Amino acid sequence: MGRNPRGPMDHLKQLVEFVTSRPGFPGAIGTEVLLVEKGRVHLRVARRPDLLQFNGFFHGGVIAGLADHAAGGAASTVMPPGKVAVTVELKINFLTPADGAWILARAEVLQAGGTLSVVTVDVVTEANGTERRCAFGTATMRAVEMKA
Amino acid sequence: MGRNPRGPMDHLKQLVEFVTSRPGFPGAIGTEVLLVEKGRVHLRVARRPDLLQFNGFFHGGVIAGLADHAAGGAASTVMPPGKVAVTVELKINFLTPADGAWILARAEVLQAGGTLSVVTVDVVTEANGTERRCAFGTATMRAVEMKA
Amino acid sequence: MGRNPRGPMDHLKQLVEFVTSRPGFPGAIGTEVLLVEKGRVHLRVARRPDLLQFNGFFHGGVIAGLADHAAGGAASTVMPPGKVAVTVELKINFLTPADGAWILARAEVLQAGGTLSVVTVDVVTEANGTERRCAFGTATMRAVEMKA
Amino acid sequence: MGRNPRGPMDHLKQLVEFVTSRPGFPGAIGTEVLLVEKGRVHLRVARRPDLLQFNGFFHGGVIAGLADHAAGGAASTVMPPGKVAVTVELKINFLTPADGAWILARAEVLQAGGTLSVVTVDVVTEANGTERRCAFGTATMRAVEMKA
Repeated sequence: MGRNPRGPMDHLKQLVEFVTSRPGFPGAIGTEVLLVEKGRVHLRVARRPDLLQFNGFFHGGVIAGLADHAAGGAASTVMPPGKVAVTVELKINFLTPADGAWILARAEVLQAGGTLSVVTVDVVTEANGTERRCAFGTATMRAVEMKA
Repeated sequence: MGRNPRGPMDHLKQLVEFVTSRPGFPGAIGTEVLLVEKGRVHLRVARRPDLLQFNGFFHGGVIAGLADHAAGGAASTVMPPGKVAVTVELKINFLTPADGAWILARAEVLQAGGTLSVVTVDVVTEANGTERRCAFGTATMRAVEMKA
Repeated sequence: MGRNPRGPMDHLKQLVEFVTSRPGFPGAIGTEVLLVEKGRVHLRVARRPDLLQFNGFFHGGVIAGLADHAAGGAASTVMPPGKVAVTVELKINFLTPADGAWILARAEVLQAGGTLSVVTVDVVTEANGTERRCAFGTATMRAVEMKA
Repeated sequence: MGRNPRGPMDHLKQLVEFVTSRPGFPGAIGTEVLLVEKGRVHLRVARRPDLLQFNGFFHGGVIAGLADHAAGGAASTVMPPGKVAVTVELKINFLTPADGAWILARAEVLQAGGTLSVVTVDVVTEANGTERRCAFGTATMRAVEMKA
């Protein structure tokens, strides 16, 4: 049997993949969609010279951008059809050097509301074959009409 | 005659331009250094398709990254020689669509300390020939030894 | 002649004073309303033993609470009649010890919108007869119906 | 046998209880210390008229103050002896009305460092016999020498 190929989860994944694959920043930095579930989105970006800061670590803008995009995706999965999340504000702590082969953002909805949702995002990096948290953020998201 | 070509302001400007022009994210997104003074740095990025989100506005990651880089530059100008700023945390509110021909981040040190500094950043975008604030952020910066 | 005693500014001041003077936390900590204008509110609290932390400085909760209340007041002054601001989120940096005879929060609306407003708040303390900034915050406020 | 009455956990609990019970804001609002472990502190405050805002919910300053105090306690448990945490900055989202009989802050260290630590704090309130999250915060804490 398997899952309904037109089920709501597939629809959510398609939505996040569609937004991510369109021309623009998320695609340009090579964002991969690893997981989309109701309330959760995981995105990964592999190391590339143009994504780093002068010391060889992933730049804060790439980390914040990935966290933001994952948070927006996660918030969008809990909004009514036809709505998409835009970021009201983002707060992010940079905890350890993002010096691995990739960074991975795991966004999870903390509170879903009709207008506003709050999402937390863990960002980990690969380090010696395991993962280590390199950033943690919280984003406030607002539901807006998605234009066709 | 003009200003001493080896004066402290020139040194600061060179430092920010050097960090910005090295291979990496700030250079890859086309960051221009407009102003470097003690406690203040202004950086600008021009619109390009790979810097936008799906709706045609500058992506939050680019805005946050530019704000972060400007804040780090501004904090570095008030640190002792040989020190450079790394970001402890960044908080940013996205106020209006960043839909102009460029975005410009103006960072200003609010509080300078031996270990930690706090910087505010206004981000404006061009709109019909004038500028409009599109984001506002606050960053906590930490002084670390700059490696040669 | 002087100003219309029923003018909109007086109405705003009455609103902020009314909310502040009702039984509750703002009144209990001795909040004084110093200024209410469209988009700006200044509030002050005098030093008292029950408002301090173990080291003799104003406690972060009092500073954050005063900043929050001032931000809510300022946001309420730019909302339509019948609406009042509630806090979506607050971010605050503690910059220097709040060790003076009072703390004073100056809130100013950065961006006013139909649903959300963003307010910055400078908190200063008295130090040797002059004032010194001890905290800086940003708050996101939401307009809700005020119950009669 | 039981636990060593002079063990490190007891010492930590005594430290947090000592700081909380001294004259000042945490004691004045009736803070109870429920749990102290390495990296975790839980604090509770019961509803009282002087801790509320005009709408009858716990005031944001009380919620932020309790979160701040819990975060400082949790960070202090992972610092070397003789050091205590002071708050660099606090970010807090107010998620649902804090309208219960009490609020309870659960702070947990996310990242411990020699100088800086980052702590997350969940704040829940009692609602119809169960608990509901009403706020979530992140704090950056700095280790300073504790004066005798």
